[in-house]
Parts: sequence; structure tokens; C-alpha cells
Amino acid sequence: MYPNSLRNLIESFKYLPGIGEKTAERLAFSVLSLDEEQAELFAESLLDVKKKIHPCVCCNALTENDLCFVCSDLTRDKKTLCVVEDTRNVFLFEKLGMFHGYYHVLNGLISPLDGVNPEDIGIDKLLDRITSDNFKEVIFAFKPSIEGETTALYIKKILSDMNVVVTRLASGVPIGADMEYVDSLTLERALKDRKEIE
Amino acid sequence: MYPNSLRNLIESFKYLPGIGEKTAERLAFSVLSLDEEQAELFAESLLDVKKKIHPCVCCNALTENDLCFVCSDLTRDKKTLCVVEDTRNVFLFEKLGMFHGYYHVLNGLISPLDGVNPEDIGIDKLLDRITSDNFKEVIFAFKPSIEGETTALYIKKILSDMNVVVTRLASGVPIGADMEYVDSLTLERALKDRKEIE
Repeated sequence: MYPNSLRNLIESFKYLPGIGEKTAERLAFSVLSLDEEQAELFAESLLDVKKKIHPCVCCNALTENDLCFVCSDLTRDKKTLCVVEDTRNVFLFEKLGMFHGYYHVLNGLISPLDGVNPEDIGIDKLLDRITSDNFKEVIFAFKPSIEGETTALYIKKILSDMNVVVTRLASGVPIGADMEYVDSLTLERALKDRKEIE
Repeated sequence: MYPNSLRNLIESFKYLPGIGEKTAERLAFSVLSLDEEQAELFAESLLDVKKKIHPCVCCNALTENDLCFVCSDLTRDKKTLCVVEDTRNVFLFEKLGMFHGYYHVLNGLISPLDGVNPEDIGIDKLLDRITSDNFKEVIFAFKPSIEGETTALYIKKILSDMNVVVTRLASGVPIGADMEYVDSLTLERALKDRKEIE
């Protein structure tokens, strides 16, 4: 029914997460109203992203160069390392603009149920880096979940005989949340980790 | 902050309607997990859609050939013509699979407030076609709106001295709708156009 190229474009949009038939159709039709140049840039960047982007040799964050923009910035705080589970989180923190140390991106989190063991997520490389770069504080910025806790505890145990402070993000009630909608695990953690008002 | 190619891809997704920064980021990252082949097909179809697709010489529906798949199908009902305001509606009706006549796609609807006059939407071509192809019924499948009504009435007036039945889609309460959420104009129309139960 659809012309071939339009059909292919609809199918291509459907490869992307959260995009079903109807949305794919809407997006494909909207490509028809793009400028020639916009469509060309779009197509080019699709190919470029696949060709040029790879993990940073130092921290695994995505980059087009050998070193990512954080690792190649020598003015940052050399004492602090923030460990994340996904390269996207590097960009999340950088948007905040509050953290000035370096990052290390693991290849996911330990999850024995899914067959993901410590050696699968690149912990060796992380440990080598902590030792050789002599970080004083390692922050775990994992999502608050069984996998996040497991991974943090596992690495903390290995680091315990090294001279490094190990921290994790605070968990608790999100700012602006209605108390009645906060789940019980979060509330429990918020109560346990309560802070003295200064 | 983002590698260049990734930044370009995010910007490209943002050209599309309803896609903001956050969604564009999510989609761009998901491209990284596509197969090489999928990304190539995606890029190729983006360019192909812009290069190959154009209006059918007969009915204006989008096609890669001279004639669209409906106009080139000689087995359809030659007496009935369905006039739509957008090429997408041709595909909508074809998916239903209930209509077996031909289509004609106008270039939008008459809307004096937006400066769109009868001569802008290709009514001449429609009239020529109705005369030369000798259709017996013309169905207006416009959206129920002032512009839809105006366009339908305008064309009906011109057709009044020709031997052709002019119809429009039924308007009324959508199937499955809760009565309390049906707007008053729709309810008014549904009451006015009530049908005897057979």
C-alpha cells in the first residue's frame, strides 16, 4: 500500500524503542516536510553515529575520539571518581554541572539472575584505574535497585583494603513528591537516612 | 558535551513533530544499539523518501511512480470518488479495506482566515477529473470542522448542475464513547442526523 521508501522508513522508525506503527507512520510522513538539507543531515548523522562513536579508552563513555571530553579535560578534580552504569548518566550529571571529578562507565550492573557476573561489567578496568590514578573518593551513582546495591557492595568490598572513601548517592523522598505517592521502600530509606537539620 | 555525530542526530530527531530534547536523546542513544544494516536502511530510506516520493499525476496521493497504487488499479469501482484533504487519509481508508472506488487528494481545505482560497487547494483539477472520468458519486471525507464544511459546500455548489450525487461522511457519537465526554456540537449533529432503526 505505502510506496517502498516510505514503508522502509516506517519500519526503520519502528526499530526505535517506544515507537509503534501509528507513531512511525506519523514520523515518516513528517520527514516528507523536512528540508532536503535536514533530511541529508539526519541520514548522515545516523551513519556517523554508528561509524564514529565508540567507548573512551579510559572511562568507557561514548566519544568520537580516543579520550572523551571529560577524560581529556585535565583541569577537573583528580581525586573524585563517579562510577555509573550507563554512558547516558555521564551526560545527565554533566548537564547538572555540579560534579567536577571524573567518570567511569561500567557495562551495566551485576545481576546473577540475568547471568551478568562481576567480570562481565568491566570491574577489573575500574579497579586498575582507581589504583593507578590514585582517586581518594569513589561515588557509586547506580540506580537504587537490588542490582545497584549488589554492584556497589561487591566493589566496596574489594576496595576495603585500599585508602579510598566509598560513597553512594543519597536515596529518599524526591523533591516535590506527594508523600502519599512515595513507595514504602523509599520512605523506609528516607527515615533510616534522616539528616539533622543544621 | 555530546560527540558531534550524536549531537547532530539528536537535533535531527528534534525536527520531527512532538519530539523534544529528552525524547530525541533517548532515540539517538537507541540508534547506537541498532544493527549496522538497520542504521543503513534507516539512513537510505530517509533520503529515498525525499528523492523518490511525489504526488500521483492523477489523484495527488503520494507515490514513487507516475500513478499511485489506487489509480493504477483498473479493477476498482469507477463510479465513486472519495475526496480527502491529505494523502495520509488515503492510507487510512485503504487500511479499512471497505472502500473500493478511487481517491482524490486536495491540497488541504479552504480556510479564508489562513489565506487558503479555493484556487490554492487544487479544486480545478478535481472538477476536471470528475467531468472527464464521469464519476456518479463524490464522497467528501474531510474532517468535521468549519474548513471541512466550507470546502464541501463550495465544491457541492459547483457540482450542482452536474449529474453527480454528493455525499459526506456521517458525523455523530463515536462508537465506544462515554456519552458524558461527547462534545455538544457532536451531540447536536448526532441528534439532527438520527437514523431510524431498521
